[in-house]
Amino acid sequence: MPIPAPNLYPPFNILRLSHVEYRVTDLARARAFWVDTLGLQVTAEEPGRLYLRAMEERGHHCVTLVEAAEPSVGVLGFKVFDEGELDKAAAWFARQGLPVEWVESPFITRAFRTRDPFGIPLEFYARMERLAPIHQKYALYRGVKPLRIDHFNMFASDVDASVAFYNQIGFRVTEYTEDAESGRCWAAWMHRKGGVHDVAFTNGRGPRLHHTAFWVPTPLNIIDLLDLMATTGYVANIERGPGRHGISNAFFLYIRDPDGHRIEIYCSDYQTVDPDLEPIRWDLKDPQRQTLWGAPAPRSWFEEGSVFEGAELVASALTAQPIVAP
Amino acid sequence: MPIPAPNLYPPFNILRLSHVEYRVTDLARARAFWVDTLGLQVTAEEPGRLYLRAMEERGHHCVTLVEAAEPSVGVLGFKVFDEGELDKAAAWFARQGLPVEWVESPFITRAFRTRDPFGIPLEFYARMERLAPIHQKYALYRGVKPLRIDHFNMFASDVDASVAFYNQIGFRVTEYTEDAESGRCWAAWMHRKGGVHDVAFTNGRGPRLHHTAFWVPTPLNIIDLLDLMATTGYVANIERGPGRHGISNAFFLYIRDPDGHRIEIYCSDYQTVDPDLEPIRWDLKDPQRQTLWGAPAPRSWFEEGSVFEGAELVASALTAQPIVAP
Amino acid sequence: MPIPAPNLYPPFNILRLSHVEYRVTDLARARAFWVDTLGLQVTAEEPGRLYLRAMEERGHHCVTLVEAAEPSVGVLGFKVFDEGELDKAAAWFARQGLPVEWVESPFITRAFRTRDPFGIPLEFYARMERLAPIHQKYALYRGVKPLRIDHFNMFASDVDASVAFYNQIGFRVTEYTEDAESGRCWAAWMHRKGGVHDVAFTNGRGPRLHHTAFWVPTPLNIIDLLDLMATTGYVANIERGPGRHGISNAFFLYIRDPDGHRIEIYCSDYQTVDPDLEPIRWDLKDPQRQTLWGAPAPRSWFEEGSVFEGAELVASALTAQPIVAP
Amino acid sequence: MPIPAPNLYPPFNILRLSHVEYRVTDLARARAFWVDTLGLQVTAEEPGRLYLRAMEERGHHCVTLVEAAEPSVGVLGFKVFDEGELDKAAAWFARQGLPVEWVESPFITRAFRTRDPFGIPLEFYARMERLAPIHQKYALYRGVKPLRIDHFNMFASDVDASVAFYNQIGFRVTEYTEDAESGRCWAAWMHRKGGVHDVAFTNGRGPRLHHTAFWVPTPLNIIDLLDLMATTGYVANIERGPGRHGISNAFFLYIRDPDGHRIEIYCSDYQTVDPDLEPIRWDLKDPQRQTLWGAPAPRSWFEEGSVFEGAELVASALTAQPIVAP
Repeated sequence: MPIPAPNLYPPFNILRLSHVEYRVTDLARARAFWVDTLGLQVTAEEPGRLYLRAMEERGHHCVTLVEAAEPSVGVLGFKVFDEGELDKAAAWFARQGLPVEWVESPFITRAFRTRDPFGIPLEFYARMERLAPIHQKYALYRGVKPLRIDHFNMFASDVDASVAFYNQIGFRVTEYTEDAESGRCWAAWMHRKGGVHDVAFTNGRGPRLHHTAFWVPTPLNIIDLLDLMATTGYVANIERGPGRHGISNAFFLYIRDPDGHRIEIYCSDYQTVDPDLEPIRWDLKDPQRQTLWGAPAPRSWFEEGSVFEGAELVASALTAQPIVAP
Repeated sequence: MPIPAPNLYPPFNILRLSHVEYRVTDLARARAFWVDTLGLQVTAEEPGRLYLRAMEERGHHCVTLVEAAEPSVGVLGFKVFDEGELDKAAAWFARQGLPVEWVESPFITRAFRTRDPFGIPLEFYARMERLAPIHQKYALYRGVKPLRIDHFNMFASDVDASVAFYNQIGFRVTEYTEDAESGRCWAAWMHRKGGVHDVAFTNGRGPRLHHTAFWVPTPLNIIDLLDLMATTGYVANIERGPGRHGISNAFFLYIRDPDGHRIEIYCSDYQTVDPDLEPIRWDLKDPQRQTLWGAPAPRSWFEEGSVFEGAELVASALTAQPIVAP
Repeated sequence: MPIPAPNLYPPFNILRLSHVEYRVTDLARARAFWVDTLGLQVTAEEPGRLYLRAMEERGHHCVTLVEAAEPSVGVLGFKVFDEGELDKAAAWFARQGLPVEWVESPFITRAFRTRDPFGIPLEFYARMERLAPIHQKYALYRGVKPLRIDHFNMFASDVDASVAFYNQIGFRVTEYTEDAESGRCWAAWMHRKGGVHDVAFTNGRGPRLHHTAFWVPTPLNIIDLLDLMATTGYVANIERGPGRHGISNAFFLYIRDPDGHRIEIYCSDYQTVDPDLEPIRWDLKDPQRQTLWGAPAPRSWFEEGSVFEGAELVASALTAQPIVAP
Repeated sequence: MPIPAPNLYPPFNILRLSHVEYRVTDLARARAFWVDTLGLQVTAEEPGRLYLRAMEERGHHCVTLVEAAEPSVGVLGFKVFDEGELDKAAAWFARQGLPVEWVESPFITRAFRTRDPFGIPLEFYARMERLAPIHQKYALYRGVKPLRIDHFNMFASDVDASVAFYNQIGFRVTEYTEDAESGRCWAAWMHRKGGVHDVAFTNGRGPRLHHTAFWVPTPLNIIDLLDLMATTGYVANIERGPGRHGISNAFFLYIRDPDGHRIEIYCSDYQTVDPDLEPIRWDLKDPQRQTLWGAPAPRSWFEEGSVFEGAELVASALTAQPIVAP
C-alpha cells in the first residue's frame, strides 16, 4: 500500500484550489474559446490579460489568461483559511528550503509564491476580492454553463514523491492507481475541499499540467458543448469523451484550448468530507479505472500537457512509456 | 445526384417498420440482456421463443427472440395501412417475380413473407394483436427505458440498387452519403413513418443487418445504460458511443447482444412528415457525417453484422474495404 | 362512448398543423419574448410583421406575429399533401357551405382560407417556401431550444361537435375525457402527423385558442426556460407547470406571451402512426388526467384564451363553469 | 442586519450532518416507501428497526426507521472531526447547562446525546462503522437514486435565537430571510460541510422537523420519482414541486412519507467552502425567495412538520400565522 496515512493535522489550513494563470499566444483567440464557447465570465480586462470566473464563484477569478510568446502555465493558486494560516504556510515552505516570495497579485490582499519540490509554481493567499453572486443571473449562462473550478491534474515524474509532499500539507488521497508488481503509485487524487480532488498526479514526464477541470450541472451541458464546438470550428479541439471515469465516477469531457491547454469538463463526483474516508485503490491493469465504459483514450491524452513557467522537466521514474490514469 | 425523386404515390401504403426476429443461441442469456438490461417487456413466452415490446408500443411485439443453433436474423416486419393495402403489397411483390408466401405469424391476423431483390426476408401485415398501454406504468420502466423500435440499418452490396427498390415502395430518402468521385451513393436513410428513417442502407458485404435501433427519451437514459452495462458484466458489449451522428443528428450508442447482434440506442432525430422534405447530402469525405464530435468508430462497427436467414452474401460493388456511414 | 370511429379514408389528406398568426399589440415587446426568450428564429421581417420558425423546421414559418390594436389569433394553418389535395380540400369545404377564399399568403404557393363550422379561421396550403436546415447550427440555439410547432388546443363550446367535424377531415382521436354521467366528451386530442395531437378541443366558451405548443428536446430545456424567464422579468408570464399530463403523458410548461397568448412548451409524448391505435379514455372525475402528479392548475388556465379574428363566442353547451382538461 | 458574524473558530469541529432517526407507525409500509420507492439501501435490519444509506455514503446509515406508536423524530445526528473533538463537544454542551448523556448508538464507536436550548435532540459522534463503496454498483440504483443526506430543516419559534446558538458551534449562515420591518430573521440556512446548508431554521411553532433533504444527481431523477409515485399509489404523498428555490438555487421536490414525515429531494445548490462567503439576504416580501418561478406552496407545507421526541412545542415569537421561507 503506497498511500501514506492522511495527515489530519497539517501545518496550515488550505481550503481549496483557487485559480490558474495560463499563458496564451493570442488573447483574442483565447477569449473566443474561454468566454464565448466555454461560457466563463470576464471579471476584469487589462492590456494582455483577462480575468475570468465561473457562474457560482464569488472570488474575483479562477482563470487568468495572459498573452505570451509561448503557451505555458504561470502559476497554480490556492486559498488558505485566513491571514494567519497564510503566514504559517509561508513559514512552512521556508523551513523546507523552498522559495517564498511575497508578490503583488492583482485583486488579492496578500499572496506569496513558492514552488513545490518538483518545480510547480504555487501561489497561496487568504483573501481575494469578492464579487456579487451571478449564479441566478440565468441570462448570463452560456456554453457549457461552468459553475466552478474543480481541480488541477499534473504529470509527475515520481507520483509517490508528489503524494508524500502534498499529503504533508493536508491533501487527502481519495483514489489511487497502484502497480501491483512494483508496489508504486501510478496516479493519485487528493482533496482539501470535500470533493474527490483539488489536485491529482499522474505518472509521466513532469512537472506538467495535464488539465484544469470545471464543474458543470449535468451531462447534458457537456453534450451541448460538444454540439456547439463541433459546429463552430472547434471539432479538432475535442480530445476525449464524453465518458465516465472509473476513478472518481466523473462524467467527463476533455477539450483543448487554442494553445493546447487541456480542460476537463466534469460532473457527478462524490462528497468526501469525512477524515476517515478510505481511499479507493485501483489496479494499474484494470481498464475500467480510466473509462468505466471501456472506450480507449487517444495517445495525445497520455502524452501531452502544459509546461509550467520555469520548471525543469524530468522523465518519469517509472517508465519511458507513460501510462496514465485519468 | 444519385438519389431518385421520392415516389409519393407508391403501389401500397407501408406505415412503418414493426418487428424483427432474432435467432439467438442461448435464450436465457439473451433474455438477461434484452429484458433485464435493456428493459424491453416480455409479452409472450413459448418454449424456445420470447416476444418483447417497448414501453409505448401497443402492438404485441417489436422483437422476437428465437433459440437457434446459429445467430441470425429471421425476418424484418413492416405494418401496412389495412388489409386492402396488404393484398396490394402481396400482388406487387408477386408482379416483381419475388416470392410471396402467406404465413401463420403468431399474434398477427394475416401476413405474407417475401424477400427483397437482395435476399432480405420481409414480412408484411396490417393487424397485429393490440395490448393495453403501459407507457404510464412507470414501475415497469428499467434499463434504458426503451420507448419504441425506430429503424433497421442494413449492409447493402449496392446501395444505389437498394435505394431504388425501397424508393419504389414509398420509402423517402432523408439523408444520404455520396462519393463525389464516383457519384455513387454510399449510404442512405429512408423513412415511412415521419422520422429520419425506418430503414437505412450502408455500403458493405450484404445483405446483413447492421443494427436495429430503439428510441429512448433522453441522452441521460443512454448514460444510465452505459453505467449499468459497465458494472454488470457487459462492458465488452459496448461497441461505440455515446456520440452524435452528423447524419440524422441522433444521439447514439451501439451495443452488441450476447450473440453479437448490434443494437442502436437512439434519441433526438427530427420530424420529416413533409413530402417535399429535401434530402440532406453528405460527402463521403466529410468526417462529421458519422460523428459530429469527431471520435472514430471501431473497426468492428464497420465490418460486422448479422446475417439474414437464407440470404446469400455478396461483396460490395464499390470497394473491398467497406467504408460505412452510420 | 362518444368518440366516432376514425375516418381512415378522409376526403383530402392533411399532413400536419403548420403555422399560426398571432396579433400582438407591441411587436418589439413580442419579439423580445418569442425570439430572445423562447428562442424561435426570425426568417423574415416586414413592417409590422415578423415570421418565425423553430430549429428543425424547413418550412418558412410556424408563427407570424402581426402588430394590431388588439391581441387575437388571425388564422391556424395546415399543410396538405400536394396541390391536388389542396383543391380537393377547397371543394370539400365549399360543399359544406363553408367560405372558401383563395388568398395571397406570403411565402406560400397557393392557399385558401375558410372557417370551421364554429368560426375558427383556417388556412390550407400544400407548399410553403423551404429554408436550409439549421438544426445542426448549434450556435443559434437559445432559450428553450424549440424544435417544432406541435399542436393547437382550442376551447370549444361543443366538443362533441368539434370532434365530429375534425374526424370527418381525417383527424384521429388519441385520447379523450368523457363525462360518465352525461356521456358527453369534455375534451379530445386528435392527430394527423403521427404524434398525440395536431389539434385538441376543450370544453369552454368558444371558439378560442387555448394554446399553441412547441416541442423541445428534454425536460431540462423547460427548466432552463423557467430559470431564464424568472430572472429576466417574465416571472408573471409563467402560468402553470412544469408538470406531467396524464393525458398524452407530456412533460409540460404553460407560459403567456406579453399579450396573454398562451404557449405550451412540451416534450415526451408518444408515436401514434397506427390507424388501429385505440383512443385512451379518461374519466372527467379522474384528477390525474390533467396532472399525473396531482398539482392543480390556476384558474386562469381554465378560463382564459385568445379570441379568433372574426369568430363569435358561444357559451359552453355543457356548463357555465368550464372544467377543462389539458 | 440580524445575522451574527460567522464564528470561524468554534469550540469544536462538526464535519457535517449525518443521520436522522424517524419513528414510523408501520415499518413494512415505511420500507416500501423509503427503500422500494425512494431507493435508499438497507444496511441492517433488527426487529422494529431498519438502517438505510444513500448510494455514495460509506457511513453505515443516514436514516434509521424505528417502529413506534406515534410518528416522531428520535434524534438528529452529526459527525465531528475526531474523538478529541467529540470530547470537546460534550464538555461544551455540559458547560452550557445542556444535558449530555453518553449512549450506545448502534454502529457508532462513541456517541453522546444532548438537546439544543430549544429541545431538539442531537447526537454527536466521530466514528461510525464504514461500509464498502456502492456508488458504482449501478444495478442497485432505483427510485430517485439518492446520493447522500444533505440537510435538516427545522421550524423554530425564534429563528434569531436558533441562528445565534448554531453560529456559536460553527455553523455559517449562507442565506437568510429578513423581515425588513422588524429587522428579525425569518429563516436561515447554515452550513458546515461546504454546501448551502447542513441545517436550516424557519419561523413557526417549534421545534419541529420541517424536512430532511437528500441529494440526487439531476432534475430528471426527480421527474422519474414523480412519475413513479404518481402511478404506484403515492400521488397524495407529493406535496410541493418540482420547482426552483430562490434561496439556495436548489431544484426541489417535497414529498411525505406514509407517516407524514416530509422529505426534500434536491439538486443543484452551490459550493460554500470559503469562510469569507457573504450571506445572501432575501426580503420577506420577495416572493422569489421561496420559488424562483413563482408557483405558490400549499398550506400544509407552511404548517405541518414532525415533532421531536420529548421536545415541548412553543408558538412562534413572531406571528400566529407562520410565514415560512423554504
